[in-house]
Formats: sequence, C-alpha cells, structure tokens
Amino acid sequence: MKILSKKIIASLLVLTLMIGGSFALSYMNPTAQAITTDNTWSGTAPKYVFLFIGDGMSYPQFTSANDYLGAVAYEGKKVESKNLGFTEFPVTGAAMTFDSSSFCPDSASTATSMSTGFKTLSGIINMDEQKSIAYETISEKLKKQKGYKIGVISSVPINHATPAAFYAHQPSRNNYYDIALELVNSDFDYFGGGGFLQQTGKSGDQKDILDIAKAKGYTVANTKESILGLTAASGKVIAINPELVGGALPYEIDRKAGELSLADFTRKGIDTLYNENGFFMMVEGGKIDWACHANDAMASIKDTIAFNDAVSEAVKFYEKYPDDTLIVVTGDHETGGLTIGFAGTKYSTYLDNLSNQEGSYEVFDKSVASYRTHKTPFETVLKDIKAQFGLMTEKDADASKNAEMVLSDFEYNKLKSAYEMSMIEKSDRKLSEEESLLYGGYEPLTVTITHLLNNKSGIGWTSYSHTGIPVAVFSNGKGSHLFNGYYNNTDIFVKLKALTNVK
Amino acid sequence: MKILSKKIIASLLVLTLMIGGSFALSYMNPTAQAITTDNTWSGTAPKYVFLFIGDGMSYPQFTSANDYLGAVAYEGKKVESKNLGFTEFPVTGAAMTFDSSSFCPDSASTATSMSTGFKTLSGIINMDEQKSIAYETISEKLKKQKGYKIGVISSVPINHATPAAFYAHQPSRNNYYDIALELVNSDFDYFGGGGFLQQTGKSGDQKDILDIAKAKGYTVANTKESILGLTAASGKVIAINPELVGGALPYEIDRKAGELSLADFTRKGIDTLYNENGFFMMVEGGKIDWACHANDAMASIKDTIAFNDAVSEAVKFYEKYPDDTLIVVTGDHETGGLTIGFAGTKYSTYLDNLSNQEGSYEVFDKSVASYRTHKTPFETVLKDIKAQFGLMTEKDADASKNAEMVLSDFEYNKLKSAYEMSMIEKSDRKLSEEESLLYGGYEPLTVTITHLLNNKSGIGWTSYSHTGIPVAVFSNGKGSHLFNGYYNNTDIFVKLKALTNVK
Repeated sequence: MKILSKKIIASLLVLTLMIGGSFALSYMNPTAQAITTDNTWSGTAPKYVFLFIGDGMSYPQFTSANDYLGAVAYEGKKVESKNLGFTEFPVTGAAMTFDSSSFCPDSASTATSMSTGFKTLSGIINMDEQKSIAYETISEKLKKQKGYKIGVISSVPINHATPAAFYAHQPSRNNYYDIALELVNSDFDYFGGGGFLQQTGKSGDQKDILDIAKAKGYTVANTKESILGLTAASGKVIAINPELVGGALPYEIDRKAGELSLADFTRKGIDTLYNENGFFMMVEGGKIDWACHANDAMASIKDTIAFNDAVSEAVKFYEKYPDDTLIVVTGDHETGGLTIGFAGTKYSTYLDNLSNQEGSYEVFDKSVASYRTHKTPFETVLKDIKAQFGLMTEKDADASKNAEMVLSDFEYNKLKSAYEMSMIEKSDRKLSEEESLLYGGYEPLTVTITHLLNNKSGIGWTSYSHTGIPVAVFSNGKGSHLFNGYYNNTDIFVKLKALTNVK
Repeated sequence: MKILSKKIIASLLVLTLMIGGSFALSYMNPTAQAITTDNTWSGTAPKYVFLFIGDGMSYPQFTSANDYLGAVAYEGKKVESKNLGFTEFPVTGAAMTFDSSSFCPDSASTATSMSTGFKTLSGIINMDEQKSIAYETISEKLKKQKGYKIGVISSVPINHATPAAFYAHQPSRNNYYDIALELVNSDFDYFGGGGFLQQTGKSGDQKDILDIAKAKGYTVANTKESILGLTAASGKVIAINPELVGGALPYEIDRKAGELSLADFTRKGIDTLYNENGFFMMVEGGKIDWACHANDAMASIKDTIAFNDAVSEAVKFYEKYPDDTLIVVTGDHETGGLTIGFAGTKYSTYLDNLSNQEGSYEVFDKSVASYRTHKTPFETVLKDIKAQFGLMTEKDADASKNAEMVLSDFEYNKLKSAYEMSMIEKSDRKLSEEESLLYGGYEPLTVTITHLLNNKSGIGWTSYSHTGIPVAVFSNGKGSHLFNGYYNNTDIFVKLKALTNVK
C-alpha cells in the first residue's frame, strides 16, 4: 500500500535537505493526502442494516460509561472497565466530524454527511451549502431501489435534526413542521420514540401532523399496549412514547419502572419491519447529547447505557440472521468536551460517586423553579442537594460521610453564588462573562451542582456546545470490515451505499 | 461471530421480561465480556517492526494538529483538516489505557502494558503490582529469540519512563540511575534522542553512565556531525542530542534551524539498525505529554507534527521494504483533557490564532523569572505578551487588530492576577483552591497566557494530569490488520508477540 504520494515524498526530501529551513515550510508542503479507506464491496447486500447514532457520543461518552460501570461493579477494589456490548464489536474505525461551517459541527450537517455523503453547513438537513440542491439519502435509495422497509427511531422528537436527516431535505433544521410533512410523505415504514415538535405548525394553525399521517395510511400507536402489540402485520406505523418530556423520551435516569425505553422502540421496530426482502433502521440515542450540553455526566452515562441496550436488540436479531445483518454504531460529534480526569482530582477518579445522583438536571431544574417561587432558604436547598446528589457541607456530614463528597469552602461559595443567581427571575439576571462561562445558559444552581459532583468524581467539561474530536465507528456483521480505518463521516454513507449496491 | 455469550443473553432476556425491574439491576448483570480482538497470526514475522508512541497523545492531540494545519492552510476560507500521515494509515484500532492504579494511568504502567502485556501500578516499570516479578519485554524477546537489533528513541531523557519500559525493570520510574544501568547492560543496539537524568546517580556520586556505556562497547555520539555520520557499521550506539533542555530535545516550537529533530534520530536509528535479519524500534514523542501537562496547545501541536515527521522516516523505509515492515503508531494515554471547542467560543474555533505563539511555555517561563528579578511593570510585560502570543489589550490594539485576540476585562483581570502571583517568589506564594486549579503548579502568568490564547482559539483543558479516554492505534504494513478493534493496551504486546513468533 502506498501511504505517501511520490510528490509528497519529493517535498519531504526537499525539506530533509533543507535542514536549516524554517519550520513554517512544512505547512506549505503538508503531508496530508486523500484518506485511505476501503469503500469497495463485491458481495451481495446485507439484507438487514442497522445504523445506530449516539448523538454527542464520542470516545469520552462511552468510555465514561464503561469506566463508571467498572467503578460501581468493583467498588474501588479493582480498576477495570465493564464494557458496553457495542464497544466490543470486532471492527472499529473513527470518523472525522467537521462540517462546512466548523470543526465543532452540529447534528444536522453530520447526520447529512452519514445519510448522503455530503458535507454541508451546520443547521442544514440534506441540502447543499447554498440550500438549493436536495441530496437523496441512503434510506430513500434503499426504499426506492431495493424495496427495503425503512425505520427511523429516536429518543428525542422524531422531527429533530438527526432522525430528519434520514427522510427530510430542508434549508433549516428548525423547519419542524415542514420536516414532519416530509416524514408523513416519506412512505417509510416505522417511526418510533419521540413525538413531534410543532405538531400543528410553528404558530399552531396548521393541520395536526398526526391527522395527516393517518390520512396517509399510518397507524399512530401512542400507548404502551398498542406499541408493544405492533407486529410485521401492523403496516406503516408511527409509535410515540406515551410519556414524553418536551417531545422526547425521559432521560434514562428519570425513566420510571414500566415505562418504554429506546430498546423497546428498537425491538418493536424490528418486529414491525422484519420481512424477507430487507430493512434499514436508524436508531438515535439523542439524549446523550442533551445531557452533555447540560454537563450532566450521570444523565449522559445512563443514556449511553440505554443506547447500548437498544443496540443489544439488534445484536439479538443479528444472532438469528448473522449472514444477512450489518450493525454500525457511531456518534455524530462530541458534546461538552467531557473528560475522564479533572485538575482538582489529578490522577484519581471517583466515578462511583456519580451514583449519588438520583435524577437528571432537568428534574432538579423544576425544584429550582419552586425554590424561586417559594423563596426557599439556602439551608433547606442544601438538604435537597445532599439527598439528591450526595454533596454535603462539613456540618451536614454524618459519621458515614464519604469525604470526597464534602464541599470545600471554595465549592460551598460557588454553590451559594449559583443559588443566589437562580433565585433571581430569569429575565432579571445580569450575568458577567465569568458567570456566563460558569453557567452556560443553564440554571445556575443545577449546573453548578452537576459540575461539582462531576469534578469531585473526576470528570471535567470544557463546553456547553459540540467539540471537534472524531467519533468511533463500531461494526459487526456482513460487510463490517469496511468500517475499519480513519475517514470522513461522509464515508459512512459511501460504505453503506457500496455494501447495499445502490446508486 | 458471537458478540454476547449465551449467559449474558439469558440475563438480558430476564431483564427484558422484567420491564418493571429497577434499572440498577443491569449493573448486576453487566453486558461486559472479554474483548473480541484478533491476536492470531500464522505468517512469517515482519523483519522490521516500528512502534511509535506519542506520549500523552490521544484523539484530541492529533486531531488538534490536523485541524490546526487545515486552519492555517485554508486561512479560514474552508473548514477542513490537513491530516498527518500516520492518521491515514489503512488500519485503525483503539486501546483502553487504564492501569492497576487508575483510569488516569501514567506512562510507566502504560508502556509496561504495551511492552510486556501486563497491567501494573502507575510508576512501575515492567514489574508486577507487588514489585517482585520482572516481566520480559517484547524488545528483549526479539533480541534473544530472533536476534533482531533493537533501537529505543525518545525526545525526552532516554531513561524516562516510556523508553525505560523497553529495556528496564524497576519498582519505580524514579530510579533513573538504575534504569540507566539497565540500559548500558541491555546490549541493545541504538539509543537516540534525549540524554540521561541523574547521569552520575541521584547524589552525583556514582560512576558516569556514559563511561560505563563506553566500557560496555557503546559509541557515544553527541555532536550533530557524529550523529549524522552514523551507519550500520557504527556498532552499538548512544546518540544524544547536543542541544538538550532538561535532558530532553527542545520543544519543536523552540528548535532552532539546523538543530537535530526526532525525525533525524529516527532516520539515523534506521541507518544504524538496518540488517537483513531484522530490527525492532520504539520511538517516543515524549514532549507532546509535557506540553499538554502545561496546557500549551501550540507546543503540543508542533511536537505532534514533529512526531509525525519521525513516523514519515519509517514510512520511507516501509516503501523500500513493504513486505517485511510493520509500523504501529499509538499513544500511551491522553494528557490535559484537551478539547477542540470551548464554552466561550461555543461552536467556533480560531485555531490559526495559535500561530501567534512564538515559543513554548518553557521559554516564556524564563522571561517571567526575569520579570520577577527586575520587577518589570505589567505594562511592559503586556508588550512582550502581545509580541510573543498575539494577545493584546483594547488600548494596544492597532488598526490591523484581530478582534479575537483582544482581551476582555475579565481576561485582562485574570492576566493581571496571574502576573501579580508570578511576581511573588515561588516559595512565598500562598495559593487558594481556586488559584491551584487555575495554575496547576505551573508559572501563573505563563499558564494563564496559554489558557487565554488556547481558549480564544477554541481549545479547552480540564486537567494538568493524564485523563482516561482511549488512545488510537494506527498501523500499516505486514500484519497490520491485527491492530484493528477496541482492546486493552496489553493486546498491543500480544499482537506484536504473535506477529513476530516469539514466546
């Protein structure tokens, strides 16, 4: 295999000869070249293709889940991760995520890249940078050219950017109603998970999207019983979780016993789509991203575990049809700049301390709103914080205290300042540059609590936005070896296209 | 392929049936299992084996280099990375780095894992956790069983932890003199790059290690001329850079025109080791780690580029002997919690701004010492900061100012506080918890400057220590396909052992 072209070798030789040359020269003769990755396939197409996308999930997200599970299992007696099943798939690759706007891309453009093979601007769904050309998606190709049944599943609203990139073509990810119209016109076979944003249009004056869906022949299943009753004979289905929070499934950490999970929607998707001709299914773990935007590590870890549980449903299917099934698991970008390690804890981590957290930041935000209304004193709030996150003051620490969970004066003062800011009505808050960095637009008290708990557990964050490291690609089954290598996220489309022999 | 064992499937089924079961149950039935990775090889051994280790180099380090090169090349007109050659090797894998002490391991234990296949405690070189059993390294096996010539190269001192793990066996990485004694007794063929720490022992009362080396038959080459003159006829060689800084090569950003580079030591290693029977060479880019400890992104990026230049020497050799050569490029752990993306810059990065930095943090530290001695006023220091890092106050900004480089009041105050702390004699400083987090034991003014420049460029840091994400493994050449997958760093040894047919 040729790794460096002759031209580049020549440049290197010139550089080598110019030992006295300035370093900047090497930028003018970069060693970069087209990526080497295998996109060729001469076999028959895998009949059953799964693409799992953990939104905001890169190396830090699944590693923190693996390490947390190990920390809990071994109770600090041994350092070892307990690895989520998908991280043990036999083939791994890594994909570069930058889009036409930024090295820190968004979900619209990155899902477009995986779905169509094109880079585009952040915010655009399956259209070019000028917003004039619509790109055909892998799911549309498979439907039209191969007659595969198509499923799109997400733990966030089904017309959110990532799922939309598998059926819609819009100049803006915010065109929720137009995206939903494309959904009901897609003739795709199974939509599952979250509900619709702007179900009756931005101003609430459009026809209810579910009525249009029914007119188009869709069965809308939105009770647990009707969803669990879905079969291959159910026809075209939109399955909406009966317990929605902002159009999305609850965070896994908040999901109550008996409520449906992303794994349930995946399993029922398989039941509904299964046919001898083939299907393609995209499953998004969308709330990993949301948890990481809010810098809530425990919520991210539990949603990553829930995402793995969904992958496990595909693995069970694969074990029945190993010669016909391909599973690809990846992310779209990293969110939050999550790190396993923090300046304050140096080389130590205390990940099992995260299990003190009882609910997501979102649930605690509701308590904060109530504290504000009732002018709840800080001392009372501290009791809730101890009960729900395990963080405590020296005074409140009892004999069985975990020393790592006791707040230092510095930490106490940070918490107090955040409490004071949270007690001000949102519209009246005036944040300094430092406070904006500290709170990132989130509820000051809540985000300070998750920061403190995360930092004390040995977890750091650098952003409330997306970051620029590559995402992992794990693959198993027919044709999976193509997913080895380090390539652009657009190659995920190219590989899927080659493997399924579509044009 | 079987991904989940029957027992685990059974557990999953039980869980599935117990929809009402508590979530915690899944921790008691983890989906974890032994890692699936291919460690079998039935071919002949690659004769020429290169193992490159970027110390502290994980995904963030090489991606920031790739993105920086793209940002500089396209001057912000296009978003695209310019990829270092090794990131385009055809085979990629990822290795888990935790050791027996921590999820944030050190270089001694991680290099031990790659060199011997065992996890051990941080700080230990090639011995078990009880410090009683010495493990035989891949390099020793190749020397003894196959007669391969062995080379060990590093940009940091040659008796530092990572290089030591290829020839020494010590209960502590700090036993520098004992490690050096093992070096001269190793009978290995080429040591190149940095010099020796404690060359005459911890107290300076031991025999000079170079005298012992010469008595053992080593040629010590420590001038540019003698090093560039090395050939396969030179016998056993210790080649030490004539321009050492603390026993190490200068940071690449500080390397002067005409001074030797890591690539030079690699090329001369190849020249010295080349023989028809075979060789094994470990090359460490050690100062990527040091730069990241200090949170100096520009120094890290330039040392990562220098590391790639060293890999390019192996690639040139590979192109001559493609059927007999294997190249593996990896890291030992991540350092610093580096992220491409920062809360203050949100979805934007301005990586080309980093090129305003003219020297490493280490060089500026010397200026700070001088400011302290001479009580240099802040206004004067600000001029140096503008000249050497591009950061400027609104007042100092001229017409051609780059708005992103102008300090806000918040940033100015951070810089001023750091200056004031740096003007105090080190022994007299009393740091608060907040200041300890801000400065991490580094020179307050310098680390605040790199933080500000990095943050304003869209780079974040969370730690001054190592962190816990996996490292990438890139491979090319004979047997490289074994390095695909997600596995423990100990598997790097297992794969090298299998490929070279040693016991």
